[in-house]
Amino acid sequence: MAKKPNKLKARLPRGFVDRTADDIRATDEMLANIRAVYEQYGFDPVETPAFEFTDCLGKFLPDTDRPNAGVFSVQDEDEQWMSLRYDLTAPLARHVSENINEIQLPYRTYRSGWVFRNEKPGPGRFRQFMQFDADTVGAPGVQADAEMCMMMADTMEALGIPRGDYVIRVNNRKVLDGVLESVGLGGETHEERRLTVLRAIDKLDKFGVEGVRLLLGEGRKDESGDFTKGAGLEPGAIDTLVAFLSGTGGIENDGITELNTMAAIFASCGYGEDRIKIDPSVVRGLEYYTGPVYEAELLFDVTNEKGEVVQFGSVGGGGRYDGLVKRFTGRDVPATGFSIGVSRLMTALKNLGKLGTADMVAPVLVTVMDGDTAALGKYQKMVQDLRTAGVRAEMYQGNWKKFGNQLKYADRRGCPIAIIQGSDEREAGEIQIKDLIEGKRLSEEIADNITWRESRPAQVTVKVSELVATVKELLDGQADDRRRAGEE
Amino acid sequence: MAKKPNKLKARLPRGFVDRTADDIRATDEMLANIRAVYEQYGFDPVETPAFEFTDCLGKFLPDTDRPNAGVFSVQDEDEQWMSLRYDLTAPLARHVSENINEIQLPYRTYRSGWVFRNEKPGPGRFRQFMQFDADTVGAPGVQADAEMCMMMADTMEALGIPRGDYVIRVNNRKVLDGVLESVGLGGETHEERRLTVLRAIDKLDKFGVEGVRLLLGEGRKDESGDFTKGAGLEPGAIDTLVAFLSGTGGIENDGITELNTMAAIFASCGYGEDRIKIDPSVVRGLEYYTGPVYEAELLFDVTNEKGEVVQFGSVGGGGRYDGLVKRFTGRDVPATGFSIGVSRLMTALKNLGKLGTADMVAPVLVTVMDGDTAALGKYQKMVQDLRTAGVRAEMYQGNWKKFGNQLKYADRRGCPIAIIQGSDEREAGEIQIKDLIEGKRLSEEIADNITWRESRPAQVTVKVSELVATVKELLDGQADDRRRAGEE
Repeated sequence: MAKKPNKLKARLPRGFVDRTADDIRATDEMLANIRAVYEQYGFDPVETPAFEFTDCLGKFLPDTDRPNAGVFSVQDEDEQWMSLRYDLTAPLARHVSENINEIQLPYRTYRSGWVFRNEKPGPGRFRQFMQFDADTVGAPGVQADAEMCMMMADTMEALGIPRGDYVIRVNNRKVLDGVLESVGLGGETHEERRLTVLRAIDKLDKFGVEGVRLLLGEGRKDESGDFTKGAGLEPGAIDTLVAFLSGTGGIENDGITELNTMAAIFASCGYGEDRIKIDPSVVRGLEYYTGPVYEAELLFDVTNEKGEVVQFGSVGGGGRYDGLVKRFTGRDVPATGFSIGVSRLMTALKNLGKLGTADMVAPVLVTVMDGDTAALGKYQKMVQDLRTAGVRAEMYQGNWKKFGNQLKYADRRGCPIAIIQGSDEREAGEIQIKDLIEGKRLSEEIADNITWRESRPAQVTVKVSELVATVKELLDGQADDRRRAGEE
Repeated sequence: MAKKPNKLKARLPRGFVDRTADDIRATDEMLANIRAVYEQYGFDPVETPAFEFTDCLGKFLPDTDRPNAGVFSVQDEDEQWMSLRYDLTAPLARHVSENINEIQLPYRTYRSGWVFRNEKPGPGRFRQFMQFDADTVGAPGVQADAEMCMMMADTMEALGIPRGDYVIRVNNRKVLDGVLESVGLGGETHEERRLTVLRAIDKLDKFGVEGVRLLLGEGRKDESGDFTKGAGLEPGAIDTLVAFLSGTGGIENDGITELNTMAAIFASCGYGEDRIKIDPSVVRGLEYYTGPVYEAELLFDVTNEKGEVVQFGSVGGGGRYDGLVKRFTGRDVPATGFSIGVSRLMTALKNLGKLGTADMVAPVLVTVMDGDTAALGKYQKMVQDLRTAGVRAEMYQGNWKKFGNQLKYADRRGCPIAIIQGSDEREAGEIQIKDLIEGKRLSEEIADNITWRESRPAQVTVKVSELVATVKELLDGQADDRRRAGEE
């Protein structure tokens, strides 16, 4: 068989990771909770595929100076370029436009799925990650944006994040656009420079006022010496922007009116400033927003990779994007929606101890003492009987000849019970049932008051016909112990 | 704003589709049922990302003459090629190999996910589709293969497919390899030709014995005139193979011994030939199988796109792949597993009427009669009160000025109830509640005996404080009606 002497190295491209059982179960639990909130709000699921034609996706990503404009692209057979989606909003706009005659507007939908960014990966930065989006398409009024903010707040609480540990911050691009115009950055010709300014402002949390001043001016050198070119604004313009961000530079425009309407809706629905807050520093990095923008931020402290204590920060956000469908249809189809960063939110919930409480019990292990066909059939029959009775169970599928390996496997896998039947027992129609949890408890001689109770026998021998009933009884006893330990 | 006068065409690349709410809910329901069976069997989830390095995936796909060898590939920044996974087995082998020192063998895992094929799309053939896999890695004995077959059978029944409407067909590559050797196709030099022969045999269901004879010989021209080159075997060799497929050419080898062991395990666990059946014509198209191969087939009739009545056919399958991990580790790590084609199986379940029975009730619609901020706040508050009480509800988010559009929206969306409050009612602290289902029933004047019962009022006016209680009562009444209609 030594046909290919050069062994292949098993490895993943950078920025891609495998997901463990714990992470998958925790994510599924979290997604189910989010989904329940969105369903309650009257949203229905709809999904798009991973690929879109590149022109349909458009170029709305920040950092478009990177190769391939931040997306993964391939050429189709007929030479058209297609790309993996970098978010779930651009594909939704394509979906709505393609089916605009069949879709009943307003169209209220949600979706979770993987998105891809062809970026330089780093700590906590992945090239494949999951987003969970909700959007209302065909909704001109800011009441739709207000609803999104309330839904984000409700979602945080449905996930068990206590009030005070999160806040939804709201702003309006029109407010900012007014300010930008007042410093001479209005109109199409300044589009790119406006974007640089928006991204600078977006960094307020990260770099503080002084950092933003640098990014609005000549540029900023970070600790590693990397220089980010700034927007090149005059000192006066920078002052105006900074005053506005600090809430000291009052202005009046459509954006402010819309924010006031939203604030009134929040108030009448009982969402106080501890839950949803107007905040002029919210920007959102994507170019396609045209009105209200909003962001869900977690306020509790965590220690970052540099060992600094920081607020957890943003776990998602969104805004109004009235122009995305128009790109295709030429028709005004106003829309608003937001996106949750699934992995980031899951990390937050783990920090809060809010996930993985419903743990999965490992399977009962039926061990193998003899490998002849008749014996194998009998072992497998035991397993099937247990499964039919609703008990999670498996037969040892490795090399059965080393019995020690089987018990080591049961231990490392956390199996609650092992079933053993040698040839003597088989002749007598009997089996041994080992309570591996109790066995461990006894061997560890836990005798303090809290965990003390009369011990169960760690091993019993019963008739084969009593297998299922005995196993169920033992599992029930173990579940009681876990419950009791959880209550104490 | 008319900046880009050339309207973009909203369209998807061929072979990719959007998923509707019904399909997503049906798939989720089906996946949950499958997952429950696999968990019962002691399997745990593990997942890999969409991308792998191209060399790690290997070239095991049939039809490797297509451009890009059937996969979507891009070059990484450091010039290494990476590809989107074309199945979930090759990535699992990479995952196990990469973590071989931490993983406890046997390693029993399952996963569902999207896979990608850069193939020519056709009716029912997609370039992105979902698979659901289960694998036991580090399991040398055919008892592991037998377990997989029983798990497939149990899965079919857990999904509601009646016994007799499915069968798991089992064969062994070693049996076929013995026959191939006997007609002079043994050894490495004939690898490619053996694969052509396997694929010819795999078409037995589709083209019948005569079709397979042509594919084993010079080749076969299909109805459209397309010619598929054959394996070029001599008539004598073709006779031997066909006799073997018909079960008339008895041979003895390791493969047969293994099949006998599996048959004995099936028998002792009570899985009769109506559920799992040894069948020499099962081949499976992938090159990496080394022992038992198995396939889940649905036996009920459907009408295909040509209007012919045919058996539904395969919905999944798999087999033993002892060499895949060895490619990386150089170590023998025997493994077996199977894959379910999720969309195909869902189509089958829809045909059987086994999905989507738990239908989602559309939201209660709070209509908008006045657009001033105070009124909007009140409407939104009604919606939030309903949601808090567990009622699915939404406020109309479109242009509220055409009230007819709001009722049309409620009708097309299937809303069960509409809430209306004009300025007069607002002053009186009242609301109108319209039972849209009852309204429709009354307007259709259904009066036959089966559906007859005393009619409810289709519209009531109540105090705002009675909103939630009244809506819940109406929804309960509607649910009773649906139950009663279902029972009749």
